Amino acid sequence: SYSVSMKFSIAVMPGDGIGNEVVPEGLKVLKRAIEVSGEPVELELTDYKVGAQRYHETGETLTDEELESLREHDAIFFGACGDPSVPSGVLERGVILKMRFGLGHAVNLRPSKLFAGVTSPLAEPGKIDFVVVREGTEGSYTGSGGSVRTDTPQEVATEVSVNTWYGVERAVRDAFARAQARNKKLTYVHKHNVMVHAGHLWRRVVEKVGQEFPEVAVNYEHTDACTIYMVTNPERYDVIVTDNLFGDILTDLAAAVTGGIGLAASGNLNVEGTAPSLFEPIHGSAPDIAGQQIADPTASILSGALMASHLGLETVAKAIETAVEADLAERDGTKRSTAEVGDAIAARLG
Amino acid sequence: SYSVSMKFSIAVMPGDGIGNEVVPEGLKVLKRAIEVSGEPVELELTDYKVGAQRYHETGETLTDEELESLREHDAIFFGACGDPSVPSGVLERGVILKMRFGLGHAVNLRPSKLFAGVTSPLAEPGKIDFVVVREGTEGSYTGSGGSVRTDTPQEVATEVSVNTWYGVERAVRDAFARAQARNKKLTYVHKHNVMVHAGHLWRRVVEKVGQEFPEVAVNYEHTDACTIYMVTNPERYDVIVTDNLFGDILTDLAAAVTGGIGLAASGNLNVEGTAPSLFEPIHGSAPDIAGQQIADPTASILSGALMASHLGLETVAKAIETAVEADLAERDGTKRSTAEVGDAIAARLG
Ligand SMILES: CC(C)[C@H](C(=O)O)[C@@H](O)C(=O)O
Ligand SMILES: CC(C)[C@H](C(=O)O)[C@@H](O)C(=O)O
Repeated sequence: SYSVSMKFSIAVMPGDGIGNEVVPEGLKVLKRAIEVSGEPVELELTDYKVGAQRYHETGETLTDEELESLREHDAIFFGACGDPSVPSGVLERGVILKMRFGLGHAVNLRPSKLFAGVTSPLAEPGKIDFVVVREGTEGSYTGSGGSVRTDTPQEVATEVSVNTWYGVERAVRDAFARAQARNKKLTYVHKHNVMVHAGHLWRRVVEKVGQEFPEVAVNYEHTDACTIYMVTNPERYDVIVTDNLFGDILTDLAAAVTGGIGLAASGNLNVEGTAPSLFEPIHGSAPDIAGQQIADPTASILSGALMASHLGLETVAKAIETAVEADLAERDGTKRSTAEVGDAIAARLG
Repeated sequence: SYSVSMKFSIAVMPGDGIGNEVVPEGLKVLKRAIEVSGEPVELELTDYKVGAQRYHETGETLTDEELESLREHDAIFFGACGDPSVPSGVLERGVILKMRFGLGHAVNLRPSKLFAGVTSPLAEPGKIDFVVVREGTEGSYTGSGGSVRTDTPQEVATEVSVNTWYGVERAVRDAFARAQARNKKLTYVHKHNVMVHAGHLWRRVVEKVGQEFPEVAVNYEHTDACTIYMVTNPERYDVIVTDNLFGDILTDLAAAVTGGIGLAASGNLNVEGTAPSLFEPIHGSAPDIAGQQIADPTASILSGALMASHLGLETVAKAIETAVEADLAERDGTKRSTAEVGDAIAARLG
């Protein structure tokens, strides 16, 4: 059945620093793409204020009530969080990870593509077009661990990576399905020669789930080896699946080889559809360049495309990507403000 | 007091795969460099057989008795260990990590230098010349952790990163001393916004030890950010200090940007001098190319130079480095066998 008008409720959370400059451009382009598509889609935007300023004023990061109210939305459009004035970890744990864990963002999806016209720091980049499926809710990100005899020469601090069959399977299954729909190649990355407990769980899950996807060719790489191939032979990858920490590291590296984190979008996906997914640039708040309208909003704009696709608006998503590709292909080093880049991409939508 | 003749006792452990091809070249060049130097130095070599073949024949990796007898030597010259026929982790834990942990190899030292004439996969490599001081005896490498409800949908596997003030301080102090002797820049790399327990220990140790090195400028980078700079701006680094797992990943990446792991040497250093240090290429056993005399022995040869320097034979070390640099500068793509590369470098010593 087809409804005459679709209304999507989006939580908008610009956060800190350049988050406040790029998110408006992401929304500008998304709105324009919907308008031009002629689809009967309405966006209802609700602002959420999180980040350093609020933390300093109120001591709050993201309250439990807000986390609950976020569940009412169809998706979350996020900017960035973090500021040197706030102790390391407070906003990360209190906002970003609180949402990823609380809303069951099992898959942190990070496409890596070298667009035409984009300069890679690699000497001879081939065709780079892969996606990383990073597990999003466990591993070294749980905060599990602690320290004893703190601040003495006898201090011991532990950090526990927690891995469950349930959590790993959610990510691995998603990755297999993506590989099946793409070029049928899945690389799983771990360090199972050293981290034997978690590594062997990952291996057994990949073997088990793989039986359901006989067409997908699977190979394994150690994380350290993967970083080498990422710079010498990135065209080998189609879909990569890996744990939370390795995924964090590898996707920043992947962004670097495909022209920089100014272009890298991501989706934190609740794969069961039991809570809204979140879309964000993989870059951070970049306090050093914030407030100057010099940040590149492309990653936020592409995050808007990922969100559109997630909401089923494939035409809208495709139109945004096409407009971004066209803009990238013609960048010639001329300085444009953050808003000018957004305007230019919006204008290409017709 | 000066002794007329110095005898160094070296444990030689080629291991698996190309380890058996590169170690003889490393020794060939080292012996020649000593000969040419005119220094009254004698090497006494003792072979140790470890690796896949022995494991299959006897079930043994490296026995406790052998670990004890290794202590009698002045240094260990290692090749590589690992073979697909042996379950992942067995040789790593049973040989490599057994030595690193048992002999207190607090510092895993990994120089990264882009030599003249070497092609980097980077488009515009600047001057790359830094060393990574990777903590070598703890972090995610302890094997601590386990799994419950193994092989069921309710499985939970943990991997515990263990960090002690004692262990971190050993590595950090070594890194500060190296920075002091080099360009007085130390970058410490962690992920303390997420791994708060271990991260904060690292931060406090760096702050405390840093007070003894007021001339060294210290900065912090998240591991993910560091991988970006490693490809976009590697000339920023002088000395990097980081934990065992991050160091594993970053040094393979560093090797890639400086021309490949065929060139990257390392030393596993007992900084207190209570047990012998170990020198090895950072590459593995490469079973796919083993036995064909096509492996590049340069990393083993440079590991020989690191060993010479560690034994106080600075002239010998410098001579090897110079010979390697000269060979690298003139490589023109002509195929040479592993032994031919060793011969060519040995010949340059005069
Ligand atoms: C800000 C930080 C908590 C986050 C992470 O480590 O996941 C960021 O690096 C990312 O990749 O989204
Ligand atoms: C073989 C493996 C145990 C080892 C490590 O992870 O340390 C290797 O990758 C290295 O870097 O020396």
